Amino acid sequence: MPGFFERLRQAARSRRSLLCVCLDPDPDRIPGGAAGALRHCAELVRRTADHACCYKPNAAFWEQYGPDGWSALLELRGRIPADLPVLLDAKRGDVPNTMRAYARAVFDVVGADAVTASPYLGADALAELTCRADRGVYVLCRTSNPGAAGLQHLAPDGRPLYLHVADLAGHCNAAGNVGLVVGATAPDELARVRAASPLPFLVPGVGVQGGDLERAVGAAWTGDDASCLVAVGRAVLYADDPAREAAALRLRIQDVLAGVS
Amino acid sequence: MPGFFERLRQAARSRRSLLCVCLDPDPDRIPGGAAGALRHCAELVRRTADHACCYKPNAAFWEQYGPDGWSALLELRGRIPADLPVLLDAKRGDVPNTMRAYARAVFDVVGADAVTASPYLGADALAELTCRADRGVYVLCRTSNPGAAGLQHLAPDGRPLYLHVADLAGHCNAAGNVGLVVGATAPDELARVRAASPLPFLVPGVGVQGGDLERAVGAAWTGDDASCLVAVGRAVLYADDPAREAAALRLRIQDVLAGVS
Repeated sequence: MPGFFERLRQAARSRRSLLCVCLDPDPDRIPGGAAGALRHCAELVRRTADHACCYKPNAAFWEQYGPDGWSALLELRGRIPADLPVLLDAKRGDVPNTMRAYARAVFDVVGADAVTASPYLGADALAELTCRADRGVYVLCRTSNPGAAGLQHLAPDGRPLYLHVADLAGHCNAAGNVGLVVGATAPDELARVRAASPLPFLVPGVGVQGGDLERAVGAAWTGDDASCLVAVGRAVLYADDPAREAAALRLRIQDVLAGVS
Repeated sequence: MPGFFERLRQAARSRRSLLCVCLDPDPDRIPGGAAGALRHCAELVRRTADHACCYKPNAAFWEQYGPDGWSALLELRGRIPADLPVLLDAKRGDVPNTMRAYARAVFDVVGADAVTASPYLGADALAELTCRADRGVYVLCRTSNPGAAGLQHLAPDGRPLYLHVADLAGHCNAAGNVGLVVGATAPDELARVRAASPLPFLVPGVGVQGGDLERAVGAAWTGDDASCLVAVGRAVLYADDPAREAAALRLRIQDVLAGVS
């Protein structure tokens, strides 16, 4: 089986899209509990599958429904077209012995093609995920939230922490299956990470979070179809017409690529 | 209802114990899937409840069983004596909107009294947990794994990152419900954190991980019964006689306290 980034690349080419659609149901907006969440998200997948190259459920939104949420997540995973990879956004980070259990949960139980992970525990913790050579691991680098700078902009040796994290992730990339999470809400920092690292980016923060899609994609894209996966959540999840919204975002991204390539 | 640390304090006094017993079932060592894990851990609780002041299931070990694991975790939570707090070791860290979903999962669905969290996303992410004033939040500070130094010992402004994290956690402590995770495997660093922060510690790394229980407890203890919660995992979980093992650890900790107070 080709590695995760090769599968992502193929999906991006077949759909001519860098769009990753988030599957993050909010019980305050979607009635019917876990079953309602599954129904809503499965329908979203059906409507957007021509415009997306990846789907990204965030574990938190399924965990909040309890065991039924996990059952619904597994069911949803089975409804995603086989040629589109699934990225479980879980941001796991624990000691190595525990990370082995998370690897089983994410890759073997959920059947995710890739996962997001926290860098805080260091390389030995990440290695328990990256050793799965056929799966991808996106390491949190510069996140999209307002408070991100609190820790991530501290600068050991004159370089911000997020660049040290990019180095750390690079050192964990022996299998060529490691990427970075770099938010669109901080396009200057994103450009600095791109100048320091060739790793593929997952770029959240577009849409409701207010990130600058054009600047972020322009800075993240390297010419490789796996280099800049743009995650969009609520803007598509709750759109009156998710297909139209996803198609419009796909085209906006294509316009940026046409301008920079 | 008294806050988490007050409940922990009362439990520590009633049991004359600082011992936190981990509930982390390994399917390679415990037969019978999620039902076997539940049976094993419920029996462990029954045998050790006189010697422990807290129980700490790690989410990873239950997630690896899929939806049945989450059901088993909820069932197990209900079997822990009401006067002993439950700490869900989940090390969650995500953007604020997502952290609200994790808060629901951890506190409302699992019914945990406290949770562990990652500091990497900053104060706004942690605030979604710490705003639950009746629940506790232990922030990862200096972890117990061999790779911890990779990122945590980088030193912005001449101070290691883990001390900046201790500051960050202190700033999130308006409700008095924040503690720090500081591993027993690094007793020098633990002493530096204690010199810099009065927050309660959760101290993992004793037992199989080889941490120095005596030095760690001696350095972490402040005279407050909530100041040093000592987590022990596999050494008790797989002991031939868990009650004897837990009782022995409790006494070793009491001996340290007798020496320093």
